[in-house]
Amino acid sequence: MPNTKTLRYQELADRLTELIRQGTYPPSGRIPSVRQMSKQQEVSISTVLQAYYLLEGHGLIEARPQSGYFVRGQVVKRLPEPEMSSPGRDPSRVSLHELVMMLMRDSRDPKLVQLGAALPNPDCLPIKKINRIIANITRHNSAALHQYQLPPGLDTLRVQIARRAVNAGCSLSPNEILVTSGGIEAIDLCLHAACRPGDIVAIESPMYFGTLQTLEVHGLRALEIPTHPRDGISLSALEFALEHNPIRAVLTISNFNNPLGSQIPDDRKKDLVEMLARRDIPLIENDVSGEIYFGEKRPMVCKAFDKKGLVMLISSFSKDIGPGLRVGWVAPGRFKAEVEWLKFTVSAASPTLPQMAVAEFIESGGYEHHLRHIRREYARNVDLLSAAVMRYFPGETRVTRPSGGFVLWVQLPENMDSLELYKLALQGGITLAPGYVFSATQQFPNFIRLNAAEFNYSTERAIEQLGDMILEMGK
Amino acid sequence: MPNTKTLRYQELADRLTELIRQGTYPPSGRIPSVRQMSKQQEVSISTVLQAYYLLEGHGLIEARPQSGYFVRGQVVKRLPEPEMSSPGRDPSRVSLHELVMMLMRDSRDPKLVQLGAALPNPDCLPIKKINRIIANITRHNSAALHQYQLPPGLDTLRVQIARRAVNAGCSLSPNEILVTSGGIEAIDLCLHAACRPGDIVAIESPMYFGTLQTLEVHGLRALEIPTHPRDGISLSALEFALEHNPIRAVLTISNFNNPLGSQIPDDRKKDLVEMLARRDIPLIENDVSGEIYFGEKRPMVCKAFDKKGLVMLISSFSKDIGPGLRVGWVAPGRFKAEVEWLKFTVSAASPTLPQMAVAEFIESGGYEHHLRHIRREYARNVDLLSAAVMRYFPGETRVTRPSGGFVLWVQLPENMDSLELYKLALQGGITLAPGYVFSATQQFPNFIRLNAAEFNYSTERAIEQLGDMILEMGK
Repeated sequence: MPNTKTLRYQELADRLTELIRQGTYPPSGRIPSVRQMSKQQEVSISTVLQAYYLLEGHGLIEARPQSGYFVRGQVVKRLPEPEMSSPGRDPSRVSLHELVMMLMRDSRDPKLVQLGAALPNPDCLPIKKINRIIANITRHNSAALHQYQLPPGLDTLRVQIARRAVNAGCSLSPNEILVTSGGIEAIDLCLHAACRPGDIVAIESPMYFGTLQTLEVHGLRALEIPTHPRDGISLSALEFALEHNPIRAVLTISNFNNPLGSQIPDDRKKDLVEMLARRDIPLIENDVSGEIYFGEKRPMVCKAFDKKGLVMLISSFSKDIGPGLRVGWVAPGRFKAEVEWLKFTVSAASPTLPQMAVAEFIESGGYEHHLRHIRREYARNVDLLSAAVMRYFPGETRVTRPSGGFVLWVQLPENMDSLELYKLALQGGITLAPGYVFSATQQFPNFIRLNAAEFNYSTERAIEQLGDMILEMGK
Repeated sequence: MPNTKTLRYQELADRLTELIRQGTYPPSGRIPSVRQMSKQQEVSISTVLQAYYLLEGHGLIEARPQSGYFVRGQVVKRLPEPEMSSPGRDPSRVSLHELVMMLMRDSRDPKLVQLGAALPNPDCLPIKKINRIIANITRHNSAALHQYQLPPGLDTLRVQIARRAVNAGCSLSPNEILVTSGGIEAIDLCLHAACRPGDIVAIESPMYFGTLQTLEVHGLRALEIPTHPRDGISLSALEFALEHNPIRAVLTISNFNNPLGSQIPDDRKKDLVEMLARRDIPLIENDVSGEIYFGEKRPMVCKAFDKKGLVMLISSFSKDIGPGLRVGWVAPGRFKAEVEWLKFTVSAASPTLPQMAVAEFIESGGYEHHLRHIRREYARNVDLLSAAVMRYFPGETRVTRPSGGFVLWVQLPENMDSLELYKLALQGGITLAPGYVFSATQQFPNFIRLNAAEFNYSTERAIEQLGDMILEMGK
């Protein structure tokens, strides 16, 4: 029962934090031993260990050899978040693809500890359920899966997507939705529909490298807009950029930017949509991790505020149901006809069976149940990885506090080169994503992105190793 | 046992043709009744009926009311083949997409007799076998199907593709092959890798409309080269075009052009490859129907003669295993790295499960067995549809004699407009593909393409109806 265990572990950590803050466990005081706590709270030893580990990572308690756990005298602050990015003001052509292809090649190597690609945790995929659904389809709906589902794609899937969009504040008809081969194809289609070679696209900075590649493929110029690690794209910077550049489109990951984990607050989403509507500029909104939120409530999407059909909302099931199925979608607003024609032209259709499986999974309620589970898992793993970074990386390190998704963006000391660290790490059996690939203008030489989807013993050892390498590089 | 039945029916027709040619059944002489023939040859009534129907279509015999079947006095010639195409000499931008999207929409309507889209016959897809394989994979290899298969795609599938390529004269390593989402994505990637917007691409004329659309998407200009309905692209015309135009790439469907059914003879494939190699011009070779040949032997591909890595060979399993799986591939020669990067960038990966299913189907021997079956089926259906066209269309009609695939290209009398016929047909519950969509320069106003994948009672009635409409239009 991993759900229950996770819940208890997080609850326990929260409760203890509260007790420390209230002074129930005063500074420098000892807290109950693992065994005592386990009895007292009726939870397993490992649950207590995880909770203590997290509190340690947050600098609230410390282990003293032979003596047990103590509340720290001076409560150490968490590592600060990275500063807002401040990319240059000139749009630039992107060219990074050898580095990206290298990264992708390494991501296939099962011998490496995979902190590089932002792949979901295999244990957080609903493998058994989807497989059961697929086997059922082969028995009871056997011929349909062999036929084309020409654009816009499978009706029943589009109905389910439209229903779920309500949670994000969107009122969408299934007819406005088009199924794609993952979110990546959707971005490709939207850029193709909205832009012409040479056009300028304003993007958040840092930005997921795949999107930078797509811009390159279409001969587009990226204009990187300063982006806050918690609140996303700076609206004032964007407004300035709009006034000084012939920007054709804007592209954001409004909820849980990859790699920042930032989330544009809902009221600022509205401001963003209105700012662009005044200028008739389309917004390509990638919401691929929108369902993996750590807070109480599904954040809204910009599309919710779209009155002119200018927002092209994109999402996919690659992060939560599984990347191997390649099921994504787009609600392209006024660009629908163009996107549909492009989809037909570049790949005719997406495969039928994965669409049927995902539709059935959502309709059965399995998806919602699954999401509740993985939101907790990812929140915990992000927390634990963050704590490990705090423990093993040098003090000047900064790390994001994402409110969703499962990546961490880490700012290393100024003089560190992330590509050098990448090479060292690879020799040590570890992959990571060097900051270079998240900017068209090499804004982030001393940053790395870590995949926090999984946290276990080998992850912790890898973070320790990385910490040692960084210290060594600094000498 | 459809295999055995088909074999008997074709054998019987061949045997009777031979007997008529030898004079065993002399001109104007009566041939045995259906019942007599059924007894005499130990085959079913329906087999004899099919054989007689075919001989009738070929003009060898005729039914006389109340009297039975007779060898025709003067053996009527088959309808002639269409002339070689003679498109204009100027490259042109393509723009047909509303017509194509209309065609695709109609192809989804189950109430229509579908002679429009070139979809395989559902009865000729190995649905049960593939479904069994998929169900097995969900049981025994359950996690793998949920992971990305990043480019170049699933290893085991690429091994099987490389092995089969030997039959087409190709010596390919699995490393030279890249899996795509159907042949259509492969064409898109190859054009993208080899050309820049504004470039000229020489193509066969007529050409599959999807490819014309892809050229449009990339802002490429199509230069249509005269093409013989049996021998494919005219090499002398191509040479002339190469001398007078800055052609960036050539695109052919070497085996069983869609819609022509033409097949470039193997020795001329060699000439074509050498002609382009001298000029260092890439050839994009679409071999999507190459396995559906009606002759004794798998025709070769141009790639077999490629010494400079200039041939980008494309195929897919959409025509023979099923379009819904979306599994295609490309061997892009010297463009491999570029195509791989593009594939990664525009859609990350193709779905994993369909790749696993196809690999397993080929490896088990099921694919080869299946191909033997469908080659006979399609040869028969093409024959029967052709016979029906001969029976019901006006005498000036011309029709191709394809040596593979499952489409017929029909040249109507000069003054006929295929778009007008398309609209009339649609009102009558029939779809067809008007000639307009197969040329960027409206070369074929009085041509139609008919999908001959299926032949049954309603197909025959549809052809009869079309014949009536054409006669009516001619008045």
